[in-house]
Amino acid sequence: METWDALTARRNVRAYTDEPIPAEHLDRILEAARRAPSSRNTQPWDFVVVTEREGLRRLAEVWQGAGHVAHSAATIALVAPARESEGERVQYDLGQVTAHIMLTATDLGIGSGHSAVGDQALARELLGLPEDRVCAYLIALGYPADRPLRPIRNPNRRAFDDVVHRERW
Amino acid sequence: METWDALTARRNVRAYTDEPIPAEHLDRILEAARRAPSSRNTQPWDFVVVTEREGLRRLAEVWQGAGHVAHSAATIALVAPARESEGERVQYDLGQVTAHIMLTATDLGIGSGHSAVGDQALARELLGLPEDRVCAYLIALGYPADRPLRPIRNPNRRAFDDVVHRERW
Repeated sequence: METWDALTARRNVRAYTDEPIPAEHLDRILEAARRAPSSRNTQPWDFVVVTEREGLRRLAEVWQGAGHVAHSAATIALVAPARESEGERVQYDLGQVTAHIMLTATDLGIGSGHSAVGDQALARELLGLPEDRVCAYLIALGYPADRPLRPIRNPNRRAFDDVVHRERW
Repeated sequence: METWDALTARRNVRAYTDEPIPAEHLDRILEAARRAPSSRNTQPWDFVVVTEREGLRRLAEVWQGAGHVAHSAATIALVAPARESEGERVQYDLGQVTAHIMLTATDLGIGSGHSAVGDQALARELLGLPEDRVCAYLIALGYPADRPLRPIRNPNRRAFDDVVHRERW
């Protein structure tokens, strides 16, 4: 898919078909995540990819907004250092990772839906995380149950001229 | 350009030719930024695009690592609410914006280079920002002075099998 088509077709997908994601497509999405830029190339992340149904069902319990994870074909847990001091910088880097994941998934016809993580103790237990890491976000993946991903003409966003300022505010 | 080619061709570009970016390409990059997802679609951002040389030269003074901004064809200032409490969430959203900008630029053959902002007072003065906003990042844009953007086979990143964990850590 053309880059612009993938970028404009990406939307929040939280209902998935039962179709599994081919291993090579899942690996391509993870490769896109790995390639994301980060502050001084520190790459302050690890990715735990979960595809087993029982694991996905339990992972869906880490946050009230993570229900869609249970029915996803795969979910990538974005794992970050627990050190508070790195909070803002790591968040910015994880945002870039997230976009890489979602746009590469869209390019393959795969929908994606983000979730925060509330119960860190449960996430740590389920994912086997070391004490010095936290699960920052979950990105659920799967083929959309409603309709294929197609470029969206008028996205639900603030108007261009409201958001964009020329030369000065 | 195919999505995967743009994603693998993106690299940090900090030296630019004198060629200006066509207005419609700059607007496409800004449109990509506008479309980025954000927490509960709050879109906690504004974009100030600077293309005038004197403005770019002065903007380059807001941080020791912003020198490349002076020679860019255009620089997009990512502006965010100053409220501390929104820090981490906004940073994550700005990371997604940044990836949308950089990948769309790459798709158009345009290089991009990020900078932090140190001197907020100067940034506020130059960009005319309200008191309740800060300039979070600068994304400089321009055609690469060294070589065109082409897919990178072996990026300078941690090994795939080091970063990716299957089912559990």
